[in-house]
Amino acid sequence: MNLSGIIGYPVTPFSENNKQVNLAQLGDVIDTLLEAKVDAIAALGSAGEAAYLNDDEWQQVADYTVKHVAGKVPVIIGIAELTTDQAVKYAQYAHHIGADMIMLSPFSYYKLSEAEIFQHYEAVSSASPLPIMVYNNPATCGVDMSPEFMLNMVNNILNASMIKESTGDIERMHKLYSLSEGNVPFFNGCNHMALEALNAGASGWCTAAPCLIGDKPKQLFEAVRNGESDKAQKLFYQQYEFLEFIVSSGLAAAVKSGLSLQGKAVGNPRKPLLPLGKLAQQQLQGMLSNLT
Amino acid sequence: MNLSGIIGYPVTPFSENNKQVNLAQLGDVIDTLLEAKVDAIAALGSAGEAAYLNDDEWQQVADYTVKHVAGKVPVIIGIAELTTDQAVKYAQYAHHIGADMIMLSPFSYYKLSEAEIFQHYEAVSSASPLPIMVYNNPATCGVDMSPEFMLNMVNNILNASMIKESTGDIERMHKLYSLSEGNVPFFNGCNHMALEALNAGASGWCTAAPCLIGDKPKQLFEAVRNGESDKAQKLFYQQYEFLEFIVSSGLAAAVKSGLSLQGKAVGNPRKPLLPLGKLAQQQLQGMLSNLT
Amino acid sequence: MNLSGIIGYPVTPFSENNKQVNLAQLGDVIDTLLEAKVDAIAALGSAGEAAYLNDDEWQQVADYTVKHVAGKVPVIIGIAELTTDQAVKYAQYAHHIGADMIMLSPFSYYKLSEAEIFQHYEAVSSASPLPIMVYNNPATCGVDMSPEFMLNMVNNILNASMIKESTGDIERMHKLYSLSEGNVPFFNGCNHMALEALNAGASGWCTAAPCLIGDKPKQLFEAVRNGESDKAQKLFYQQYEFLEFIVSSGLAAAVKSGLSLQGKAVGNPRKPLLPLGKLAQQQLQGMLSNLT
Amino acid sequence: MNLSGIIGYPVTPFSENNKQVNLAQLGDVIDTLLEAKVDAIAALGSAGEAAYLNDDEWQQVADYTVKHVAGKVPVIIGIAELTTDQAVKYAQYAHHIGADMIMLSPFSYYKLSEAEIFQHYEAVSSASPLPIMVYNNPATCGVDMSPEFMLNMVNNILNASMIKESTGDIERMHKLYSLSEGNVPFFNGCNHMALEALNAGASGWCTAAPCLIGDKPKQLFEAVRNGESDKAQKLFYQQYEFLEFIVSSGLAAAVKSGLSLQGKAVGNPRKPLLPLGKLAQQQLQGMLSNLT
Repeated sequence: MNLSGIIGYPVTPFSENNKQVNLAQLGDVIDTLLEAKVDAIAALGSAGEAAYLNDDEWQQVADYTVKHVAGKVPVIIGIAELTTDQAVKYAQYAHHIGADMIMLSPFSYYKLSEAEIFQHYEAVSSASPLPIMVYNNPATCGVDMSPEFMLNMVNNILNASMIKESTGDIERMHKLYSLSEGNVPFFNGCNHMALEALNAGASGWCTAAPCLIGDKPKQLFEAVRNGESDKAQKLFYQQYEFLEFIVSSGLAAAVKSGLSLQGKAVGNPRKPLLPLGKLAQQQLQGMLSNLT
Repeated sequence: MNLSGIIGYPVTPFSENNKQVNLAQLGDVIDTLLEAKVDAIAALGSAGEAAYLNDDEWQQVADYTVKHVAGKVPVIIGIAELTTDQAVKYAQYAHHIGADMIMLSPFSYYKLSEAEIFQHYEAVSSASPLPIMVYNNPATCGVDMSPEFMLNMVNNILNASMIKESTGDIERMHKLYSLSEGNVPFFNGCNHMALEALNAGASGWCTAAPCLIGDKPKQLFEAVRNGESDKAQKLFYQQYEFLEFIVSSGLAAAVKSGLSLQGKAVGNPRKPLLPLGKLAQQQLQGMLSNLT
Repeated sequence: MNLSGIIGYPVTPFSENNKQVNLAQLGDVIDTLLEAKVDAIAALGSAGEAAYLNDDEWQQVADYTVKHVAGKVPVIIGIAELTTDQAVKYAQYAHHIGADMIMLSPFSYYKLSEAEIFQHYEAVSSASPLPIMVYNNPATCGVDMSPEFMLNMVNNILNASMIKESTGDIERMHKLYSLSEGNVPFFNGCNHMALEALNAGASGWCTAAPCLIGDKPKQLFEAVRNGESDKAQKLFYQQYEFLEFIVSSGLAAAVKSGLSLQGKAVGNPRKPLLPLGKLAQQQLQGMLSNLT
Repeated sequence: MNLSGIIGYPVTPFSENNKQVNLAQLGDVIDTLLEAKVDAIAALGSAGEAAYLNDDEWQQVADYTVKHVAGKVPVIIGIAELTTDQAVKYAQYAHHIGADMIMLSPFSYYKLSEAEIFQHYEAVSSASPLPIMVYNNPATCGVDMSPEFMLNMVNNILNASMIKESTGDIERMHKLYSLSEGNVPFFNGCNHMALEALNAGASGWCTAAPCLIGDKPKQLFEAVRNGESDKAQKLFYQQYEFLEFIVSSGLAAAVKSGLSLQGKAVGNPRKPLLPLGKLAQQQLQGMLSNLT
């Protein structure tokens, strides 16, 4: 699987009372991403509030996403579960419904050792033939994996084949690139570092931004790929304030508020998460006006 | 409710294949704690691997604990859920089965704001009449609550009435004591800081140590309460290496290994958690020989 | 040398234009400490703004302190220099003028390795016969030394014989006590942790507080030593807000403002350090009224 | 003053006994930098061990550098002093001898407030007409300045006109660029982040690397400026391991060892700093062979 470019992250729309997933609206969000020229769709990531869904809902979203995308681009299924058994179960489900790839991160209550994380990935790899993107996001998942350790897993676990790095430390990308001599694809998971990650050799950028600002992220990716560095810098700083805002405001809350401002009824994030307050909504409205 | 002393934390024994809770063994562990003279039993804490249980298992453990303790000491039910709905459901269940108190901590995937945490506690307080111990453990729960904020919740949320502090920073306890003028009870959740927490005014010590070392923790509590400071210091340093070991090795894994060394078949922690390795088991065996 | 109890830290009074040391006023400050029943005087510590003095001033202060104390209690000379040569020179001077001990900390621009720190201490030990207190204060000195490493220096460097720990982490004191089996004396350098440090086995408490609040710190030390734990806790919380204030406001600035409020003309700290603002002075005045 | 490109940092050669500055050798190092096509020379930075020089030595180095460069490129004088008086004195000296600019950083023993830092810069600005580069390097100087605060100083202090950022956080550069709308020049002080800093809009790169690897840094700067992004990425990763090595080994020690491997007798860094060990020297030799 030769993946590169923009990997788009849909939010998970809820019904008004926050109790059910709104699948029809999910279809609209996916269409928005496809119109924004994303190169893949990643369901059930952070932006998708996967951590806040029950088993049934999780499977509904996975299932619906694969069907709705219908092969137009690859579908990646995010898995971040506390137990290995649950991660295995979801990985098997992802394969069963025809998804193309798994994005797998540890999720910790107790801090996990490298031995514990390694066996977690190995168990998932043994249970499903899908390629695995090793995903490091200590801010949400509570456990940090070094570049050396992630490369070790890619080299020694059958289906582990690429990496997503979200610590916000550009040094991690240098390590991934130089230790693997450029041979292990890695993706940027930090919106506010997209320009530099791509310049440092990232294969692509994982982002929910195209839910709100169309193909601006794709334009940035292409400017870097084509060596148009002035254009890339300009495109990046155009989007920068917005990118930083959606991360610091909480991705699900910010993107859902933005979609609502654009007339799409995707509901609120699930409690304890709160929607953006009035002031933040106004800020976001201002940024969107400038960008779309 | 006038709680003080040692709050004992049982581990959750599993069947050999790790798939079911072993309730009979749970009864034995609870009996071990009662023999160690604990002043309350807290089910479904970190030591109890609550984060790794499914709904049914969680309810079984809560139910069985209340019945088995049978009023000998108060029963506290730990709740650390990602969604407010699930926390509310569990709080109602705890009340329904006759538990005496809830120990409630936020558990985050997305970082939570104080507003989000506040409403989470308020929703639980509105849904159940049980007193709430506000529990702060950023290392496991991914979100840190300041002493000021926790006291604010105790003052403004009906059932929030006491605090458990587990950051390992003695300054937090000074703040809790001095800002509340000694009027809000707080408990120590850091095994390796028990001596100082009690000297700084903590009402008690939450610990799984009595699963393995009998009433040594209770003896330490009483020495401090009785002003026997030399004895307290001696008792503390006797236990210190052990206390530090069980925390740094992972509480559930270490206590389960220790119980197994003592001939009790409580099974392994649930994957991705791994049991202690050989070397660590030998270290633990050595410490237990000196302490029991 | 069998040191225990309260080690008092004088500030260094300056002339009105901040350009000279005011030795007569320094004598008054030392007298204040002696009246507060300190068990030793430590000149040229953080509180003494040693880092902001030139060579001549440093030597004046050292010299005057030894003469003025005149053997009533031991005199300790603080040395925190960027180069080993300068530290050696000061250590020789301290011996030459008849001081009793050196309190030596690394001070870093470039981060220092343990090998670099070790040779720094060894060079000082070889150059002067005075006993050395190994002092760890990463917040001011920019380099952190683990309990293991400091004990290693005490065991392997001739004159290194005791430790002062100022990280604010009570665990460090547990390590010092348990790894040395109680045989290496250590002192507490964190005002806001004095109660617990003494309970954890510290031989004493290094503090500038007696410049302002008389023998209150000595009373606390004695209450702990005599096993009067209720009294100790009460004494600690009486002083706690004040102790925390002088640290968080900057020790030199806060103590100088306090002395000025008490009618002693010790001048301002040296720039870029600023004296306390109006509001902070009022807060301090309130605390001092309650304590003296 | 319209500065951009590579700002080269000479080390300060010492005599064999480490007691004197070797000015003739300093001249050779400066010539090496000029041959490496640097756009400015910055004396008395971290690489120059300014913190370890006494007053006379500091002035000798400043003086000699200005004379030896003789106007071929601008000369910047680094000032990082503990007291404002000393910083003012050095700033006046820098102007007196005809230097072109000051690179000024706070250097802290006590942590400094923004008010304290502001007045420090203002005092220097009032005392000398030279333009000031505001330099943030918390790892060596012990105090961190936010992008907002540094921009505030550039806007409100007469001679403060540009910024050097060395935290290693690419986000800081985004903030500097976007908050100033690209109007305040900033320089990269992190060797291992040079590629991304330049792509993010940095005016140049402050580095001691040209002491050892010729115009490779200048080539990288020009590749980015010319929009040759593939070439820039390739040049960066060629140098990356080396750049990371000299920073993590201690800049002065590493560059001096490298010069010694290249047959230049610049002496050792000053104690407590130690020269590179055997193994590290071999690593460095290997890297230099590949790069020169």
